[in-house]
Amino acid sequence: MKVIGIDLGGTWIKMGVVTESGIQSKKIFKTNLQEGINSVINRIVYAILEIKSSSKEDWIIGLGSPGTINRKEGKIIFSPNFEDWINVPICSIIEKYTHCPVFIENDAKASAYGEKKFGAGRNIDTFFLLTLGTGVGGGAVINGEVLIGGTGYGGELGHICVFPDGLPCGCGSKGCLEAYVSKSGIINHAETYREIYPDSLVFGNNGSSPISIKNVFSLDEKNEKLSRIIVSKVIEALGIGIGSLVNIFNPEKVILSGGISLSIQKFIPSIVKIANNHTMKSMKNTFEIVTSILQEDAGILGAGSKAMEQFLLLE
Amino acid sequence: MKVIGIDLGGTWIKMGVVTESGIQSKKIFKTNLQEGINSVINRIVYAILEIKSSSKEDWIIGLGSPGTINRKEGKIIFSPNFEDWINVPICSIIEKYTHCPVFIENDAKASAYGEKKFGAGRNIDTFFLLTLGTGVGGGAVINGEVLIGGTGYGGELGHICVFPDGLPCGCGSKGCLEAYVSKSGIINHAETYREIYPDSLVFGNNGSSPISIKNVFSLDEKNEKLSRIIVSKVIEALGIGIGSLVNIFNPEKVILSGGISLSIQKFIPSIVKIANNHTMKSMKNTFEIVTSILQEDAGILGAGSKAMEQFLLLE
Repeated sequence: MKVIGIDLGGTWIKMGVVTESGIQSKKIFKTNLQEGINSVINRIVYAILEIKSSSKEDWIIGLGSPGTINRKEGKIIFSPNFEDWINVPICSIIEKYTHCPVFIENDAKASAYGEKKFGAGRNIDTFFLLTLGTGVGGGAVINGEVLIGGTGYGGELGHICVFPDGLPCGCGSKGCLEAYVSKSGIINHAETYREIYPDSLVFGNNGSSPISIKNVFSLDEKNEKLSRIIVSKVIEALGIGIGSLVNIFNPEKVILSGGISLSIQKFIPSIVKIANNHTMKSMKNTFEIVTSILQEDAGILGAGSKAMEQFLLLE
Repeated sequence: MKVIGIDLGGTWIKMGVVTESGIQSKKIFKTNLQEGINSVINRIVYAILEIKSSSKEDWIIGLGSPGTINRKEGKIIFSPNFEDWINVPICSIIEKYTHCPVFIENDAKASAYGEKKFGAGRNIDTFFLLTLGTGVGGGAVINGEVLIGGTGYGGELGHICVFPDGLPCGCGSKGCLEAYVSKSGIINHAETYREIYPDSLVFGNNGSSPISIKNVFSLDEKNEKLSRIIVSKVIEALGIGIGSLVNIFNPEKVILSGGISLSIQKFIPSIVKIANNHTMKSMKNTFEIVTSILQEDAGILGAGSKAMEQFLLLE
């Protein structure tokens, strides 16, 4: 029995052959969401068939998908950053063309699962993970179990409210952690300042370049005014959100993952400080915030090993 | 084997004999915190001895206590509304004088347990309870289990941040749900307006009456300006907080309990509306908010039945 773990992201699709000791081989390609649902799923199918052709053993697939998913029906219900992907029966489509059983999990929860088995969550029972990418995913692990909530749609830590009168969020709410800390949130946030700071280098040399997250953080290092405003809000939102989540989960560790987690590493002491200001006396300084070492691999590993467990349960 | 359940509140101590079918008899008396720790515990001991004298069977005691508790050591670690109660070994003191085993649980978590076994949480797996009393306690039940977090200090739903630049909270943080929605929060909130509205009837006829929660809500019904500001904030804070918590727990029900839950019953539709505005699309309108029917009895029932389970585990 061989296992493929897939991390379906807003920008990249990452897949790998997952074994008990880690990822054996990896394949990464652009998601190109603008090409439409069928095209994206087609490319996933082809990549699976290619990997599958390397061995005649039976294969099973674990798919980590953003947004709200239905595990039983193998569907993507809705994702803030995947417009039009409403009730997509992605598992049965992939099964049809690859003849492999496919198990779906929310991407951030798959990553939390990966961190628990292979990463910063090993040997600890209670932690939570925030994946800071196109959106902000959440994966809370309580006594070794990943929190999915009542009907499986919960555990959306990226959508707790940090600024009640804040920016609209792709999830349909406003002022969420995601609205300030994610790639899409940072871009939206910058756009709200375009009229006030039209000449800011955040908008490129002539004001017409697409906003790049990397650029925002590198401008912040040079104390550029608008980037300072945006990055300060990233730090503040994370501090407030983590503080509230510590009061709920009383975790040993908070793991930050995703592209933006690498850009904010130097701000971790500030985030810890703000988080402690929003934490009850009895839980102040009881947690540490760490950057994931596994990063993108956690999603692949988690989706794969979760699929293996699910498959064995069915046997 | 007979069981006494105790709910140690900031204002009242409530205890009862708990059986499988509910509470058999009840005893309620003032906490009188100002008399000091020893006096409060003494009165609990005497009340237990009085109840105990009614039967020669063995008795066990379940104590629901506010704040952060240590279940193993039987201690109250810290409570925002019980000043000076730091590391109080309350279980061993009560055991010493009553010769009954005593099990401690956080009061709101005991209430959640009571609601699960006897109240609005019966037959549902995932819900959360907010106890709106002197403070705001939280009890989240996930797949039938009460959330206590990593080292048992978590599940403090009343201390998620709803207004990041908001009022200080007794817990050492600021802008918490408790800072706006609890009895102590409402009083503090009103005090911040004393200079602006010195003649408000919230402060009594001559500005020197103690602020009463009942009075604030009854003035609000008459559209009195300051009470309107305060009550609006109660509703808004609850809506925002519940919205965030729904994104995390994806519950079937949200149960409100405690004195203030009765004063705000007519506002539940407004709270639901605000909560839905702060909830992800996929979870909007998936939950209902109900007022506890058990009210204070939930804490007694929960503390008692939890103690019984703990005792049987030790056997």
